[in-house]
Amino acid sequence: MKLARFQFEGEISFGILDRADDGEGVELVELSGDPMIAGFDTTGRRIPLEQARLLAPVIPRSKVVCVGKNYADHVEEMQGVTGGGVPEEPLLFLKPNTAVIGPGEPIILPAISERVEHEGELAMVIGAVTKDVPEEEALKRVFGFTCANDVTARDLQLKDGQWTRGKGFDTFCPLGPVIETDPDLADARIVTRVNGELRQEGRTSQLIHSLARIVSYASQAFTLLPGDVILTGTPAGVGPLVAGDTVEVEIEGIGKLSNPVR
Amino acid sequence: MKLARFQFEGEISFGILDRADDGEGVELVELSGDPMIAGFDTTGRRIPLEQARLLAPVIPRSKVVCVGKNYADHVEEMQGVTGGGVPEEPLLFLKPNTAVIGPGEPIILPAISERVEHEGELAMVIGAVTKDVPEEEALKRVFGFTCANDVTARDLQLKDGQWTRGKGFDTFCPLGPVIETDPDLADARIVTRVNGELRQEGRTSQLIHSLARIVSYASQAFTLLPGDVILTGTPAGVGPLVAGDTVEVEIEGIGKLSNPVR
Repeated sequence: MKLARFQFEGEISFGILDRADDGEGVELVELSGDPMIAGFDTTGRRIPLEQARLLAPVIPRSKVVCVGKNYADHVEEMQGVTGGGVPEEPLLFLKPNTAVIGPGEPIILPAISERVEHEGELAMVIGAVTKDVPEEEALKRVFGFTCANDVTARDLQLKDGQWTRGKGFDTFCPLGPVIETDPDLADARIVTRVNGELRQEGRTSQLIHSLARIVSYASQAFTLLPGDVILTGTPAGVGPLVAGDTVEVEIEGIGKLSNPVR
Repeated sequence: MKLARFQFEGEISFGILDRADDGEGVELVELSGDPMIAGFDTTGRRIPLEQARLLAPVIPRSKVVCVGKNYADHVEEMQGVTGGGVPEEPLLFLKPNTAVIGPGEPIILPAISERVEHEGELAMVIGAVTKDVPEEEALKRVFGFTCANDVTARDLQLKDGQWTRGKGFDTFCPLGPVIETDPDLADARIVTRVNGELRQEGRTSQLIHSLARIVSYASQAFTLLPGDVILTGTPAGVGPLVAGDTVEVEIEGIGKLSNPVR
């Protein structure tokens, strides 16, 4: 199932993507509340997808947890930049929820950075209060999956040592376009394009720490709340974004997240 | 004015601390809502302070921003630990709001850390949506001040390099006991005691980066929201906490935040 959060005629709602009755086009089956809290009751209204403005499919009430260095080829390309090898354990950091934007919303380059880069990633959306969950139970706590861009001011990340500021600017966490509750992630392709040109490519089968391991590990440190988002790391090919670019993160079975850069 | 968030007869309210009519004791003048949002309308009820259970005076909706290495004597003591000198700019990191606890609530030592330490700090509570605020305007965006303990699993902080996990565990951000909206912070004493014994001592006049500078700087990176909390760094004397300890952070003009350790 694909879920979207959207604005239509001034109102914000959640909806399930469904084929239109005419067999062409896609409609949003409007839900009466946030499905993560209120379930899947529908209002009876169907809205043509192209008439709705899609928003970030979730605004984390608490946190966006990120995992650094979780694809071997990206660890290799960062050797001379942030240094270090493959971490034995997931390397966690946080982005604030004020960094979240939705599909189509602009990534704003901060004046104080001279090098902002894209990092296309698979994101998990947590669906239940989760603390100390074992790996074998962990994926049951995940509500669904979406595309994310862990936008990074590389110069400030390196200058600070701590990654918080360089990765935490407003607009530095695009999410969307939808949450897929049941994708096949055994070996899904994840690509990042800038102005249509391929920049990053990886497959979920290449993750160093598995999705279940990441949820379990993060839940040892923090209580995860419904709506919290976990970014799972980026494949090789990170590179600069400049004003006027359009950056796309596409994950097989989920969708394509596209954002202009200003 | 001193504000508290408290539980009384099963309900959670905000209140203003006031002297009781008999001239002895302190009462809570109950407010009808969250003063940061709803202002200072009172319900007409007064509750003796000793009958209320004080809670964390604020639960950040978005983030707890922290500043590392902001007292020269603490920078010196950390030379051989996390390394580095006095940062030219405030060094920012985040704690998740799931780490926040109130006065009297226990700090839980995580099984996976062998060294948890106290870091007593002055905290600012943001009162308005704040982005790119100049220093001279910055303190107008601060709703008030409280005591904080930036509890840190030192071994995990060092192992990870990124400080997020070591400083982000549940219960690792005690706040309280009250928010003082107008303290004299020109040269206020801040002390941390463990089991009554003095461990850390500093004065707000010793802050490397001023309170106004910190708010202004943080607001260049993140939009600060009402209820966001900024911890301003810890003086020298950080040290271990073990189960059975009681740790107290006291700031002149604000109050004393006390938490048991389990």
